[in-house]
Amino acid sequence: MITIALDAMGGDHAPRAEVEGAIAAARELGVRVLLVGIEATVREELERHKHPDLPIEIVNADEVITMNDSPSHAFRRKKGSSLHVAAHLVKDGKADALVTAGNTGAAMTVARFVIGTLPSVDRPALAAAFPNMKEKTSIVLDVGANVDSKPEQLEQFAVMGEIYYRAIWGTKRPRVALLSIGEEEMKGNELTREAATLLKQTALNFVGNVEGRDVFRGNVDVIVCDGFIGNIALKLSEGVVEQIGGMLKKAIKSSLASQLGYALSKRAFDTLRKSTDYSEYGGAPLLGVRGITIIGHGRSNPNAIKNAIRVAAELCRAHVNEKIEQELSAIAAVAARG
Amino acid sequence: MITIALDAMGGDHAPRAEVEGAIAAARELGVRVLLVGIEATVREELERHKHPDLPIEIVNADEVITMNDSPSHAFRRKKGSSLHVAAHLVKDGKADALVTAGNTGAAMTVARFVIGTLPSVDRPALAAAFPNMKEKTSIVLDVGANVDSKPEQLEQFAVMGEIYYRAIWGTKRPRVALLSIGEEEMKGNELTREAATLLKQTALNFVGNVEGRDVFRGNVDVIVCDGFIGNIALKLSEGVVEQIGGMLKKAIKSSLASQLGYALSKRAFDTLRKSTDYSEYGGAPLLGVRGITIIGHGRSNPNAIKNAIRVAAELCRAHVNEKIEQELSAIAAVAARG
Repeated sequence: MITIALDAMGGDHAPRAEVEGAIAAARELGVRVLLVGIEATVREELERHKHPDLPIEIVNADEVITMNDSPSHAFRRKKGSSLHVAAHLVKDGKADALVTAGNTGAAMTVARFVIGTLPSVDRPALAAAFPNMKEKTSIVLDVGANVDSKPEQLEQFAVMGEIYYRAIWGTKRPRVALLSIGEEEMKGNELTREAATLLKQTALNFVGNVEGRDVFRGNVDVIVCDGFIGNIALKLSEGVVEQIGGMLKKAIKSSLASQLGYALSKRAFDTLRKSTDYSEYGGAPLLGVRGITIIGHGRSNPNAIKNAIRVAAELCRAHVNEKIEQELSAIAAVAARG
Repeated sequence: MITIALDAMGGDHAPRAEVEGAIAAARELGVRVLLVGIEATVREELERHKHPDLPIEIVNADEVITMNDSPSHAFRRKKGSSLHVAAHLVKDGKADALVTAGNTGAAMTVARFVIGTLPSVDRPALAAAFPNMKEKTSIVLDVGANVDSKPEQLEQFAVMGEIYYRAIWGTKRPRVALLSIGEEEMKGNELTREAATLLKQTALNFVGNVEGRDVFRGNVDVIVCDGFIGNIALKLSEGVVEQIGGMLKKAIKSSLASQLGYALSKRAFDTLRKSTDYSEYGGAPLLGVRGITIIGHGRSNPNAIKNAIRVAAELCRAHVNEKIEQELSAIAAVAARG
């Protein structure tokens, strides 16, 4: 049975959301969950629910990392935290995957340096899922702030993203593209032009450059970029959604007719909200770490936690890490032969 | 009287939108407009309107640049185009400003190399206006695909953007920030960290780093970035708006109640649409060129053309180019002594 080490103290609604998500996951997904956190707090929450015979255990941790802790502070000074303890469970082979809805920077740092990276991976990459107009999903990586990436690192992101996409969405030959400023081959910066040269030599279904708006058009599946750009793109998208939501609310409040209209079309808005909702996507995997690592949004509700656990289990079952190591070491061997 | 050289053949609705916009501008804004384009076509359109005594003249051009022409093809092979002729009118002092809603890449290249850049400017920068949640405007520059910028170039973008912001929005000390991946000073890539060091030494009201979502929050006025990132950010924002619009339409069509609701709240949607509408912003200035240059969206309607002319005239009246040259040459002098 696949075992998930869940940071029970991570998200904004911890440990309630984590405990409820863990119960749902254990019940529906056939996984075992280790709830890692302040034992008394987690136990109290767990006892509020009926969960006879479910494979859920509590593992104590003495500390909690907050959203305000810097990644380096969290990594160096909070070694007794639920995140650290959960990461060590994966490192020591007591769990197959780490799931957290906590501080993203801290999670990336702790996963990378406690669990370690795969031998052929330079830098783990965080992959975010974006809903697109074809009602499918495109992923963008890295969104996790790997700045000043080298062309070889973008190539690794592409390979890892493609394997992840195949595992979760079942597409046989996902279309892989570089995020750039024009579709023509000579468009882009030094980094993307050099990465394109490398990607053309791989076995990937590399389709060239796409632009910012293609993230939502559904004409490609895996979109690769430096983490500086990916992180700005992710936060910008969240910003636009927030901005439009705010404007819509204001505009609707402006008249009685609008308010009535809104009440009548509320179901339409709810559908919209759901399709832009993180919780359906189950968090972002940090690809390239020696154990599957999923980082959920801080606002994760129980459904988001359950889905993060589902994605973690699917990536374990698909042997994603073995595939990444295999493909990247093959590419490295070709490069070494020159 | 300020004279505007308007590329009458540029946008998707040329020359109709251009001619109507020019008439409105000449009537309301006290400017003289030179309509540059295929003379017979422009004259035919102009004669459909009553415009007695308005300061509008036609200047013939034999060719038209299309949206499919590459910038280099447009620049090298279409020297008789309306864009080239309009740019030459500015270069030769027969007009104060160039306004076009045509091919953005071609417009940037022709403006830069026909009209030329200001002596202290390395690269002209395209500045886009974004509506923010405080119902004000933030600008982002460069969005015009200046890739692999150097720290000194970002510093120039900041100076030019600040002067533009003061001229159009009247703010005395606009808040200037670098687009990055975290607010802390050490966050960012090599480029933004070095640019921050330079910006702290200027007289600008430099407030440090902002993240992607701050583009819409209204806590800063002028947001500076490399053109690769700015261009991706601009197109991504357009993509999100397109995506949400499409999803909303679909969701609304899904039930009769929703349709009725939509009809009742239509005015709210129209307000929303208007506040995300390019045409209200009057196009993007290409800052750093020896004559004021405004590039409008290809979809520009007459109102957008009129507003682009308005912005061009305001930038002329505010002596924006003299101010840019003065501030940048002062910075260069300090650096040389440095």
